[in-house]
Amino acid sequence: MLDTADREGLSDVLSETHPASIAEFSEGLSTEETWKLLDYTDSQQQANIFAFYTPQHQLELAEGVNHERFAPVLEKMSHDDRGNLLRKLGPKFVEALMPLVAKADRDDIKKLLSYPENTAGGMMTTDFVSISENMTAEQAISMLREKSPSSETIYYLYVLDDYYHLQGIVSLRDLIIAKPDSRVRDIMSDRVISVKVTQDKEEVAQLLAKYDFLAMPVTDEQNRLVGIVTYDDAIDVVTQEATEDALHMAGVGNLAENYLEAKFTSIWRRRAVWLSLLFLAELGTFSAIAHFQDQLDKLTVLALFIPLCISTGGNSGSQAATLVTRALALGHIKLGDWFRVLRHELVMGIMLGLTLGVIGFARASLTPESVINPPAKVEAAEAKENEAPPEKVNRFMLAHTVSQAVVCICLWGTMVGAMLPLIFKKLGFDPAYASSPFVATFVDVTGIVIFFSLSKIYLL
Amino acid sequence: MLDTADREGLSDVLSETHPASIAEFSEGLSTEETWKLLDYTDSQQQANIFAFYTPQHQLELAEGVNHERFAPVLEKMSHDDRGNLLRKLGPKFVEALMPLVAKADRDDIKKLLSYPENTAGGMMTTDFVSISENMTAEQAISMLREKSPSSETIYYLYVLDDYYHLQGIVSLRDLIIAKPDSRVRDIMSDRVISVKVTQDKEEVAQLLAKYDFLAMPVTDEQNRLVGIVTYDDAIDVVTQEATEDALHMAGVGNLAENYLEAKFTSIWRRRAVWLSLLFLAELGTFSAIAHFQDQLDKLTVLALFIPLCISTGGNSGSQAATLVTRALALGHIKLGDWFRVLRHELVMGIMLGLTLGVIGFARASLTPESVINPPAKVEAAEAKENEAPPEKVNRFMLAHTVSQAVVCICLWGTMVGAMLPLIFKKLGFDPAYASSPFVATFVDVTGIVIFFSLSKIYLL
Repeated sequence: MLDTADREGLSDVLSETHPASIAEFSEGLSTEETWKLLDYTDSQQQANIFAFYTPQHQLELAEGVNHERFAPVLEKMSHDDRGNLLRKLGPKFVEALMPLVAKADRDDIKKLLSYPENTAGGMMTTDFVSISENMTAEQAISMLREKSPSSETIYYLYVLDDYYHLQGIVSLRDLIIAKPDSRVRDIMSDRVISVKVTQDKEEVAQLLAKYDFLAMPVTDEQNRLVGIVTYDDAIDVVTQEATEDALHMAGVGNLAENYLEAKFTSIWRRRAVWLSLLFLAELGTFSAIAHFQDQLDKLTVLALFIPLCISTGGNSGSQAATLVTRALALGHIKLGDWFRVLRHELVMGIMLGLTLGVIGFARASLTPESVINPPAKVEAAEAKENEAPPEKVNRFMLAHTVSQAVVCICLWGTMVGAMLPLIFKKLGFDPAYASSPFVATFVDVTGIVIFFSLSKIYLL
Repeated sequence: MLDTADREGLSDVLSETHPASIAEFSEGLSTEETWKLLDYTDSQQQANIFAFYTPQHQLELAEGVNHERFAPVLEKMSHDDRGNLLRKLGPKFVEALMPLVAKADRDDIKKLLSYPENTAGGMMTTDFVSISENMTAEQAISMLREKSPSSETIYYLYVLDDYYHLQGIVSLRDLIIAKPDSRVRDIMSDRVISVKVTQDKEEVAQLLAKYDFLAMPVTDEQNRLVGIVTYDDAIDVVTQEATEDALHMAGVGNLAENYLEAKFTSIWRRRAVWLSLLFLAELGTFSAIAHFQDQLDKLTVLALFIPLCISTGGNSGSQAATLVTRALALGHIKLGDWFRVLRHELVMGIMLGLTLGVIGFARASLTPESVINPPAKVEAAEAKENEAPPEKVNRFMLAHTVSQAVVCICLWGTMVGAMLPLIFKKLGFDPAYASSPFVATFVDVTGIVIFFSLSKIYLL
């Protein structure tokens, strides 16, 4: 249709189709083609469509057109989406754009950009409807009809006093159901749940989901209403945080883009950095084993248990780390619960360790004699007549050593896995970084030290 | 307050506080105390509060009271929450309860329970408002005032024809903004996006989030409207699926309960089963190394590189698996994209492998001479005069072997990690099971085989 320039047909389609669908089917167009397409509809629908592009695509579109063309779209965007975009475009771009934007929007943008991105202030919209408690239901409804706020913000009305303090909330439902002449004061709910502008956005999304709200009011230090966080942004935050956590947990860092569409080299760089760091950390195992090389020379059978020992620590650690990270994300536990978590995982680690220890004992005691005491070595030892022949290793002593090492390593892995997310959170990092590969690498070296130390005591 | 039996004060608090808050502060009460508390308010508010308890707590409460007391609460619960609860209570409980429930609710419950839990049918509510396209905006609003539907379902009205086919949707916003005498036909949106009753609930939540809907209409095979999925359930599904994925990925299985409140033995059992399975699988490494024991005897330095080799496979595999699993969950890739993923990860695996290979080469070539060719062994070999002394291992040959093994293992881990989630999905399992510990364990054995095979070629 773009090619045939069927202006009317295209305008119709663009105004009647859901902006998300338009954004989806036009995702493949070039920047120039997209702007050409958007020209066929009014600036409000342009802004709606624009809001449904991926952040990456929005950036390209905003940077690929002159500021005069872009400013009207920006003015019509919802205030929260606009804030997110401008944050990404950077201060220089915003400065160049500001003179072209209406004064009211300019002030609003400045205010929103002053809040950190990961707080309620960074995700809220300042576009809400406020009323006075003396209005009647009918007056409130006709005011709505006049203002015709967007569908995101029409469903709750906020009752403010003269100092912008939040007195109560009326839902559009309450207004419709109420008698037309009843006062807002009488139908509003005055036990208001709100969040502070500085509160973490993940917490805000959790609270909104908990209370099944369509929007959560946001207040400043003086308890004045400054904005609202709407349910659609809460879903986005929940999804985004889940992705972020999953990626942190797998040691990929932040890879917010679409997997197949992101730039290959940028994915490669981030994956390579993480893998290299883990690889460098894992080099510690090299030194640890080198330290015990004498033992290995005498008893090569020990090498057979190395992967078992380190994977036990890694698996039990990643289990504990994931459970604790997820419980933190869901708000089931708080930092203050660290001692309960510690106690819980201490008992759990011992129980799990004993379970694995039994399996380890069974398997190790089935080791063939030729593997424990290789004939070549025994002969070589016997050949040296001037030395006492080394004692042969008893298979049950070996099994005992292995199982004891497994218990200790499992307990250690569990404790490290459970405590690291809490320590990370305390230090201000995302607890999800204390994740499978990280914990595993951390526990690998100690696992080797535990295993060889025990075998020194029991076997040599 | 329960103790002092301040009936009026308690009634006031219960009716004015948000049900989620009441559910939260009363979570610690016993089953008996909770029912006593609920007695102080009407059955609608009882149902609201009840819906905010955790599924586990709901079960206990429903089972801890006689059916006559429970039936009225059930009748007032929202239809989707009710369906979820009854599904958990099991068919026997439901059968005993049914005679006590009003006929209309009984039919509705039967219908909802007939849909599988993880589909749109299993999470929808049948409680929606339908209108005819010939009504005026004013008529529609006064009908709403009469029916006073719940806040979950009032915001969209569904326009049906005589055969219950969905013709269009009108939002409460559209009704308020429209002139009172305009026809529904003219203000409704007729490009309706809906889901089928059999569609996967994760997909439904994704679509609802994509279009920023408050509710998503659900139709049956004949295209008749049978229910709607509301935004609050979509948030819950997103959160729940994220938790499930995270736990699957860490090899914990399904642990939906609250971390600190779940029963210790039930957590232990599930964690132990997973760890034991992984432990048993990891025993494969034991056999793999045993197979190469001759090589190890001659060259114990090889043992120093075992942890490095296996963790390389595990880390690169878990990265790839997480990226692919998450991209599947977000709908960024589909099963049909498997070849694109394969090609992408093939190149990525080689690039990542080369990066790690360089580091591995550097580290291995710095191995001290005494570790590569331990003096004790050299002496022992020289002592045997009748045999040719074994050739000494060249450090650069060793470094070459290690780096080549790292490249191969990294590539292999990446390919396995990327393909397993797709294979799992194809077979009908949750792709998240193809996760870090699972992939790592799978790759560990092959990593050892790759490393020892290469060292046999180059070093012995």
